[in-house]
Amino acid sequence: MKKTEIKIIEEVSLDNPIFIEALPGIGHVGKLVADHLIDELEAVKFAEIYSPYFPPQVFIGEGGIIENMYNELYYLKSQGEDKRDFIILVGNTQGLSTEGQYSLCGDILDFVEPLGVKEIFTLGGVPTGQPVENSRVFGAATDSEKIKILEEVGVERASEHGIIGASGLFLGLGQLRGMSGICLMGETPGYFIDAESAEAILLKLSKLLKIEVSTDELEKRAEETKSMILKAQRMEQEVMSRQIPQQDGDDLRYIG
Amino acid sequence: MKKTEIKIIEEVSLDNPIFIEALPGIGHVGKLVADHLIDELEAVKFAEIYSPYFPPQVFIGEGGIIENMYNELYYLKSQGEDKRDFIILVGNTQGLSTEGQYSLCGDILDFVEPLGVKEIFTLGGVPTGQPVENSRVFGAATDSEKIKILEEVGVERASEHGIIGASGLFLGLGQLRGMSGICLMGETPGYFIDAESAEAILLKLSKLLKIEVSTDELEKRAEETKSMILKAQRMEQEVMSRQIPQQDGDDLRYIG
Amino acid sequence: MKKTEIKIIEEVSLDNPIFIEALPGIGHVGKLVADHLIDELEAVKFAEIYSPYFPPQVFIGEGGIIENMYNELYYLKSQGEDKRDFIILVGNTQGLSTEGQYSLCGDILDFVEPLGVKEIFTLGGVPTGQPVENSRVFGAATDSEKIKILEEVGVERASEHGIIGASGLFLGLGQLRGMSGICLMGETPGYFIDAESAEAILLKLSKLLKIEVSTDELEKRAEETKSMILKAQRMEQEVMSRQIPQQDGDDLRYIG
Amino acid sequence: MKKTEIKIIEEVSLDNPIFIEALPGIGHVGKLVADHLIDELEAVKFAEIYSPYFPPQVFIGEGGIIENMYNELYYLKSQGEDKRDFIILVGNTQGLSTEGQYSLCGDILDFVEPLGVKEIFTLGGVPTGQPVENSRVFGAATDSEKIKILEEVGVERASEHGIIGASGLFLGLGQLRGMSGICLMGETPGYFIDAESAEAILLKLSKLLKIEVSTDELEKRAEETKSMILKAQRMEQEVMSRQIPQQDGDDLRYIG
Repeated sequence: MKKTEIKIIEEVSLDNPIFIEALPGIGHVGKLVADHLIDELEAVKFAEIYSPYFPPQVFIGEGGIIENMYNELYYLKSQGEDKRDFIILVGNTQGLSTEGQYSLCGDILDFVEPLGVKEIFTLGGVPTGQPVENSRVFGAATDSEKIKILEEVGVERASEHGIIGASGLFLGLGQLRGMSGICLMGETPGYFIDAESAEAILLKLSKLLKIEVSTDELEKRAEETKSMILKAQRMEQEVMSRQIPQQDGDDLRYIG
Repeated sequence: MKKTEIKIIEEVSLDNPIFIEALPGIGHVGKLVADHLIDELEAVKFAEIYSPYFPPQVFIGEGGIIENMYNELYYLKSQGEDKRDFIILVGNTQGLSTEGQYSLCGDILDFVEPLGVKEIFTLGGVPTGQPVENSRVFGAATDSEKIKILEEVGVERASEHGIIGASGLFLGLGQLRGMSGICLMGETPGYFIDAESAEAILLKLSKLLKIEVSTDELEKRAEETKSMILKAQRMEQEVMSRQIPQQDGDDLRYIG
Repeated sequence: MKKTEIKIIEEVSLDNPIFIEALPGIGHVGKLVADHLIDELEAVKFAEIYSPYFPPQVFIGEGGIIENMYNELYYLKSQGEDKRDFIILVGNTQGLSTEGQYSLCGDILDFVEPLGVKEIFTLGGVPTGQPVENSRVFGAATDSEKIKILEEVGVERASEHGIIGASGLFLGLGQLRGMSGICLMGETPGYFIDAESAEAILLKLSKLLKIEVSTDELEKRAEETKSMILKAQRMEQEVMSRQIPQQDGDDLRYIG
Repeated sequence: MKKTEIKIIEEVSLDNPIFIEALPGIGHVGKLVADHLIDELEAVKFAEIYSPYFPPQVFIGEGGIIENMYNELYYLKSQGEDKRDFIILVGNTQGLSTEGQYSLCGDILDFVEPLGVKEIFTLGGVPTGQPVENSRVFGAATDSEKIKILEEVGVERASEHGIIGASGLFLGLGQLRGMSGICLMGETPGYFIDAESAEAILLKLSKLLKIEVSTDELEKRAEETKSMILKAQRMEQEVMSRQIPQQDGDDLRYIG
């Protein structure tokens, strides 16, 4: 496998869909929100994405069944007050290298742009490194109109930092294609999967998308996500540890 | 050398061969099992693989003769109870970078797929980090039928973790091509080459492949493998150490 | 995005322009000088550069508005005593990988060479790691004639070290195309944004380019730059930290 | 610059030339030997090599003049007892990345193979990490005939380790093209430039190539090489340090 492959499961025709990115980042709250949206609103998977830029590994699932690294695209039609269509990007990983992130993000935008995407939401987390009592939601956007919209629903303006990875890059590269967008970032202790943080994001996102989503199942889903993330962390750690082999006491070396 | 080169030594015609991957991983027990199989069953080498994704180095063998980094493909015809054909992938290294792993694995699958491969076995190790009394063998598979087969021969189901490197990737990328597969992983202390762990895998593998293989020479072969692995570790270590040059006390620097 | 994209804003026709590179390096004094030049002399932006070799991230600006990683080209016509044209390269980042640096630098030279560039200035810093009382300016050049010119304006000759990144590479790759050039490097404590160091460079640069530039606003601009750089550092740090995931106590692993 | 560029200075016609590789490795004794050979025997430069796989930097030489990263090819005609032709590969750097090493080495072999090269010598060092009293020279080769030749001139057989970088890769990739070769490795404390170690290699190499070379100037040349190497180390160190930015106390981060 030498380049990203997008396997189309269903040819879809959408009307001005909003693109929502929620790939796993450090916070993982975005992923939890998106997985919840997909289940609650019964989104339909229409494409699978495989890439040499993903980590070179597979997961072992509950029944001992292996699972590839993947990204997936789901769609929803005529949702909420405004009867809008949505595309949701989820998965069990992000690109690993710098250039891989750009390549993947570009390929996915190339794929969704002809489907009519002009607006992007990306969901991420703000690791606080310590327990969070009332998880706040911060926002950034491609333009000041979007910032106003964020303020109207009570999203705090993110301070002058940056957004690393897919949640930043989709907004940035989308903007270069004339797309506008918003990034919602929930405060979270970090690796700990925090249903409350996800709920906080979900409440703001529902208002922004003008949809209604029950949050009853969120706690349960958080538990499932937690298990997946522990696996992912464990493996990233191994990929790293393989690259720092242990000493073996013998130091005669030929180098030229 | 800019891309992986597969040098064909013999054009082979095989009947629905099972592909067995046993490249060196941290455990190295898989490699030991495969080298043993090749010797005992007198498998025939039919292709050599060289790649810019291998470490940029050569080994020095016993007589001072240098040895390239390589992967090799062997075949066996009409083996065991079911008279099955086999292809075995062995070598002295794996791909080094993430994208190199994907590229190599894809190229090798491209080469063996037209030979009729529909089924994959990958052999790996579970480093325990401490002495193992009775080396257990864990299994994962691409589907629940294979999991049942594993249970029938007493292979424990692997817990929810992951499989990094070639043993994971061949199953994952194979699955995307419609191939089914099994990964067998033997418990092993780690770098120490453990003939007992290899024997445990070999016993399960023989049952699964319905072949008979003597294990008498396994201990001796473990010693040989040990020497090869020590060299490999030593060099990986050097590749790393070259990238962290020592300070030399002078800190005037121009950077722009 | 798979390769560097240069978005032309204005088609320009220039007469033998001098190319000035001032991308952010560790010192950041070069960037401060160039941003000041652009504002004071009212340089006009004529091209934007985006690249998969930049860090995979966006910045969040003051109003919560996101900002892509970018390089930009400005031009100035008929400046100073010699009525020379200038092209100035600035941005909020440099290429991240070795090969990315070469690729970007080559693409930018491919773009400016047909505009008539035969002479290059690159601006950088010399991190001293400690407070600097009177910031000195060091120089290196592609040929001994340029070295003489540097001596005439009181630039000290840089000692036998090296120049890493864009400030070195533009001179080196430029030289291979027959361009001559000078690198000016200001002593600076390092990350601390030092308006004095920038002023020292600016004084030498003005003499060399035979232009007049007020330094009144430099202090204020230093403050702005400082805020941008803090963001950049913070994010580089995160990119790194993401690659060294924390341990989670469970060490059962499958590797093959 | 996106690929390795070989700039031909003189079209040469050679008769079965021996190719000698002596790029800077950790020991640097090989480079010292080759630079000495070039000066003493008045070898003629016929090609310059520039590559995006070199470190992204330039050196500053004695007079403040910048120097690109480069490799160079020299030739010698009708030397020594056997009236053999030689090609010598020297430079101020090697490829930086794994794949860059393979790509560069392949490109250089592509260039010298049509000139008739069938035999390769590579020169390297064995860092001992401690003072060496009588620097020994170890050898490895592509075949047992060459090993015999090494023994005849008193070169000790290298133990079962490996050869990392250009000195290993040229032999390995050369062998895949049907070239035979020898690697000579001199014991050296490491970074310290050791004229004695170089002299030990030179004595063996002269015997193997059946040439006569005075060693009078070797000590002086060692001093010059030392200065070049200190610069190189300093810069490698900086390339590394740039990738591990310092903390700045503020840990609010948005990641997605």
